[in-house]
Amino acid sequence: MQQTSTTLMELLSRDRFSAHCKMELLEVRAGYAKGRMLITNEHLNAFGTVHGGAIFTLADLVFGSAANAHGRVAMAINCSIAFVKAARKGYLTAEAREVSIGHKLATYIVSITDEENDVIATFQGTVYRKNETIEGIID
Amino acid sequence: MQQTSTTLMELLSRDRFSAHCKMELLEVRAGYAKGRMLITNEHLNAFGTVHGGAIFTLADLVFGSAANAHGRVAMAINCSIAFVKAARKGYLTAEAREVSIGHKLATYIVSITDEENDVIATFQGTVYRKNETIEGIID
Amino acid sequence: MQQTSTTLMELLSRDRFSAHCKMELLEVRAGYAKGRMLITNEHLNAFGTVHGGAIFTLADLVFGSAANAHGRVAMAINCSIAFVKAARKGYLTAEAREVSIGHKLATYIVSITDEENDVIATFQGTVYRKNETIEGIID
Amino acid sequence: MQQTSTTLMELLSRDRFSAHCKMELLEVRAGYAKGRMLITNEHLNAFGTVHGGAIFTLADLVFGSAANAHGRVAMAINCSIAFVKAARKGYLTAEAREVSIGHKLATYIVSITDEENDVIATFQGTVYRKNETIEGIID
Repeated sequence: MQQTSTTLMELLSRDRFSAHCKMELLEVRAGYAKGRMLITNEHLNAFGTVHGGAIFTLADLVFGSAANAHGRVAMAINCSIAFVKAARKGYLTAEAREVSIGHKLATYIVSITDEENDVIATFQGTVYRKNETIEGIID
Repeated sequence: MQQTSTTLMELLSRDRFSAHCKMELLEVRAGYAKGRMLITNEHLNAFGTVHGGAIFTLADLVFGSAANAHGRVAMAINCSIAFVKAARKGYLTAEAREVSIGHKLATYIVSITDEENDVIATFQGTVYRKNETIEGIID
Repeated sequence: MQQTSTTLMELLSRDRFSAHCKMELLEVRAGYAKGRMLITNEHLNAFGTVHGGAIFTLADLVFGSAANAHGRVAMAINCSIAFVKAARKGYLTAEAREVSIGHKLATYIVSITDEENDVIATFQGTVYRKNETIEGIID
Repeated sequence: MQQTSTTLMELLSRDRFSAHCKMELLEVRAGYAKGRMLITNEHLNAFGTVHGGAIFTLADLVFGSAANAHGRVAMAINCSIAFVKAARKGYLTAEAREVSIGHKLATYIVSITDEENDVIATFQGTVYRKNETIEGIID
């Protein structure tokens, strides 16, 4: 993964749930992040397609990484997701882009696509930015 | 789990992702479902609280179960979640209630609470109801 | 309107857009508000049913009133609405209830119903609570 | 307004609420629409900034126009909006872009900007596409 400070990498490596879900970050910088997951049986829902919770988690991973990459602790407060195509195999890729950032709040759009570059879901989320720095919580 | 037909139980048991996330259904009937998870290390994010993706997945599980319990295949199309309190340990419980149901669409509100009965997150979701029945896809 | 301080009433009376849309508040107290509108031709969309923007505005009115009734300036940051039934005539009523409140953020659910008490739309919204008081901005 | 069929123009001209709110469409074609409003006193909330309901209505106007421009009747089912900057004067412009379209559902992202080209709000919405055509309801 490129362009990421040691402190931020240390923080991101502590994310147990996205590791449990076998998701990985490909790129993280202030206001931007990209990640992916290879679909396995463990990601499937009762209908044999990728579970909405897995797609949301991948979107949340890049959203949170893009927001925290500014160096201040950022917590998700609201997220909306529209599921537009069922996914069955191969890699899903998620990319978060910053729409706006202020002192206390920042908003991101995330696009989740499959290997045909078709949109699987679109996601919109807002974080609350605490006063604490990432450095302050990593020792 | 009570009040659930064999066909529906067979369908719900096929959900690999919520099993991987160690979530369980407690009650499912047409338009209503309740489930829970015991927080473990694998559910945590980089800050040591439950990952938004895990909370969403638990909400999605009861939302989808309540909708599919009508007997027609229901697919999530839009979900919004507001995260209001960080969770660290014990059980999280999610309860889905139907707000409205029509021929093609149905909408649900899900409340996710911790052991102190404090709200952790509130979720709103809509499904698209296919013509296929649950029976039709279980053989 | 009952249970509302003079300061809050003065603030709410300054809302030009909801007046322009002919909406009225029936009750406002900390964390709760109820309002309504009588559907007229001016509220209709191209299909002759109430415009989504009018329904959202009514929801937003009670949401914002419930939040500001705590006495601190509260600004909407995220709102989601699911439209579940078309409305054509009579009164629409909206009721906002507080799901949670913290120092900086508070979250509400709003139900919008018609005269048959059918749900027209369900709304979920979060505000950011500033340090300024309502008193401080009314002189 | 360019690139819009007579039938669609006739439909869009029937939208009473967006006319009441003094909003206008600048461009509409299948999957895309752009519109604007000049901020007047009637658009303001109790704090003297543009009301969330007015911003939502402008977003909804371009969202619905982009969706209906395909020639099939499209009804909004879910919308989420994040408000990121307060607006006080000048023109607000909204642009809707199609993220995906299927037989029954289509999803759009709308960006609302001010005259400095700053983002005021970001909006995500899904429509249900009926079998009826726009031609079928205009006579």
